Amino acid sequence: MSASLLHEAVAHNKARYEEYGPWKLLRLTDKYHEAPRGSVVIDGKVIYGYPSIGRILRLATGLQHQFRAPFWVEEKVDGYNVRLARVGEDVLAFSRGGFICPFTTDRAPDLADLRILREQPHLVLCAEVAGPGQPYISGHPPYIKEDVQLFVFDMMRTDQAGYLPQPEKQALLEEYKLPAVCCYGRYRPDQVEEMRALLAQLTEEGREGVVMKEDSTRDHRTKLVTSYSCMDDIRGTVDHLRDLPAEYFVGRVLRLALFLEEQGEEDVIDVRRQLGSAFLDGLSRAIEQSKREQRVYHTHRCRFRDPENARRLLRHMKRSTGHAHVAQRRLEKEGEYYVLEFDKLHAAMSGLLGHVLGGGLVFD
Amino acid sequence: MSASLLHEAVAHNKARYEEYGPWKLLRLTDKYHEAPRGSVVIDGKVIYGYPSIGRILRLATGLQHQFRAPFWVEEKVDGYNVRLARVGEDVLAFSRGGFICPFTTDRAPDLADLRILREQPHLVLCAEVAGPGQPYISGHPPYIKEDVQLFVFDMMRTDQAGYLPQPEKQALLEEYKLPAVCCYGRYRPDQVEEMRALLAQLTEEGREGVVMKEDSTRDHRTKLVTSYSCMDDIRGTVDHLRDLPAEYFVGRVLRLALFLEEQGEEDVIDVRRQLGSAFLDGLSRAIEQSKREQRVYHTHRCRFRDPENARRLLRHMKRSTGHAHVAQRRLEKEGEYYVLEFDKLHAAMSGLLGHVLGGGLVFD
Repeated sequence: MSASLLHEAVAHNKARYEEYGPWKLLRLTDKYHEAPRGSVVIDGKVIYGYPSIGRILRLATGLQHQFRAPFWVEEKVDGYNVRLARVGEDVLAFSRGGFICPFTTDRAPDLADLRILREQPHLVLCAEVAGPGQPYISGHPPYIKEDVQLFVFDMMRTDQAGYLPQPEKQALLEEYKLPAVCCYGRYRPDQVEEMRALLAQLTEEGREGVVMKEDSTRDHRTKLVTSYSCMDDIRGTVDHLRDLPAEYFVGRVLRLALFLEEQGEEDVIDVRRQLGSAFLDGLSRAIEQSKREQRVYHTHRCRFRDPENARRLLRHMKRSTGHAHVAQRRLEKEGEYYVLEFDKLHAAMSGLLGHVLGGGLVFD
Repeated sequence: MSASLLHEAVAHNKARYEEYGPWKLLRLTDKYHEAPRGSVVIDGKVIYGYPSIGRILRLATGLQHQFRAPFWVEEKVDGYNVRLARVGEDVLAFSRGGFICPFTTDRAPDLADLRILREQPHLVLCAEVAGPGQPYISGHPPYIKEDVQLFVFDMMRTDQAGYLPQPEKQALLEEYKLPAVCCYGRYRPDQVEEMRALLAQLTEEGREGVVMKEDSTRDHRTKLVTSYSCMDDIRGTVDHLRDLPAEYFVGRVLRLALFLEEQGEEDVIDVRRQLGSAFLDGLSRAIEQSKREQRVYHTHRCRFRDPENARRLLRHMKRSTGHAHVAQRRLEKEGEYYVLEFDKLHAAMSGLLGHVLGGGLVFD
């Protein structure tokens, strides 16, 4: 799809012009023809969006139903999705929605050797950024103890939909020594038992799940998450449950039940206790925080190379979540980095807990 | 408010004319002036609706904040709300929404001595009907082992908003030996510790909670439920969680956390395990049912005196929930009663589980 065609999306209210430093870009706020939401036109080239992948909730039938050929199985990492692309002399990081992410753009040179984008500027790296030092989501994989890490899981070409085939991607990952998601190999749709064993192992290791990519020209994809992931999502977000759609929680409980039913439950009582804990411990923390500080919030702590990018991140967050909901605590040089600490206010949870802890009425 | 004024509500799309056997009635589908949704005009008299009561989620502040005077504390029974009124020579039972309930109307003479409505036909009895033999909701109090029981908790007069004062109601309950909710006495707003102890006892006994009614002319009311109730609601409905708003579950988890925080937790691990069980055991049952029968449903079993009322109930349910979602299993005379057995299909849950157990994709 050509850049000029995407400009038409503006007239259909499916794209917006935006600026970021010296760059002007067109960002798709909605799907337009075959270009997904989050596709971007910048410096005359199209960087396709990364569309969401459908999930299966059952291996036994899902593999047979979804795949017509063997498929590659890769780790699904619990972080946020970015695309890294060469734009002029810069490397910019685009979020799922097509915004330029000041944090990832700032830190990209630390997280991966970007030589590949200098030598092959038509390539786009699709990656997950995860760890306790990221500014967006509350959870992170337990095996990343500090800061953030980047894991490439796909490559695209600018101005082109679709991904590089697995062998080509794998060769480039090795050639450029890029950090990548773990590839667990190539499975056939009838290898249900092997996949079940793999998912049991991933649960054990505290990993989110897998993305499966059919080894064929249609490159059909689907994902499946572990019970660990369901529990961890609830545990990590329940303290602001009113700020998320209720379906977020109910959906995860349902996924968990289906996962357990298929995997067989080794320790039934413990899984039940863990789920109860996931809900109640976080809520108990939120209640305590509300009583103590009259609000519910998370403090994020992120490292930046350039303090201007920290300011850009805060400006972006204030614009998208509301000015009063993001508050800087400090931005100071520590060693090689500038450390930004900021609070994200959970407005709905703060309001509700303040109201009911003060003795207010609720109608439902 | 006069009957004639309520007829105006039809023009504002807030009321409908309906028929039930020989009776024509006007039913408020929405609040109109001070008449709540579910108010009814029948045989020239107005039977006011029973408005929903706001809930508090914290005793320590809620009592002080809500009440300016001592208040009566009564048991909140886990059933469905009806109003019983004399209409011509009949006694009819009206649901919360203002529909005539064929089941309660049929069984009312078994459940209470209705002499009061013959002798004082301007009275309306507000009651909860609860037990495993009722056709509407899935849960019931554990202390009602079979069929249904009725518990009067308020009395109104036709053509008048508001309830009879507590002493007058209590005198009539005793005079006519009517089954009523348990009254735990009159408390002052500063008796937080006493109320806390009462709620601990109610949780222990498997009771839903309390309704508190200020002993004053403004008759302000509020309710509070036990942790038992939160768990039991989840346990009783999670097998059809897609057929209910997700907020139903999330709200109950939040109530539970607030209740536990205030009551102090005697056995932390066990409460967590119980909550996990409440979610996972019911889902596991639904998954098994879906695998076995390709659908998720509940079978209800209710006794009727007159089989025509059983047929009326099914017709009403088919109209309100969709024809395909209610299926009669049998209607047969057993001893003094006609026993109706019917299945209520949980369409959304059946559809979702069928899809995912068959290996289908979910986007969320």
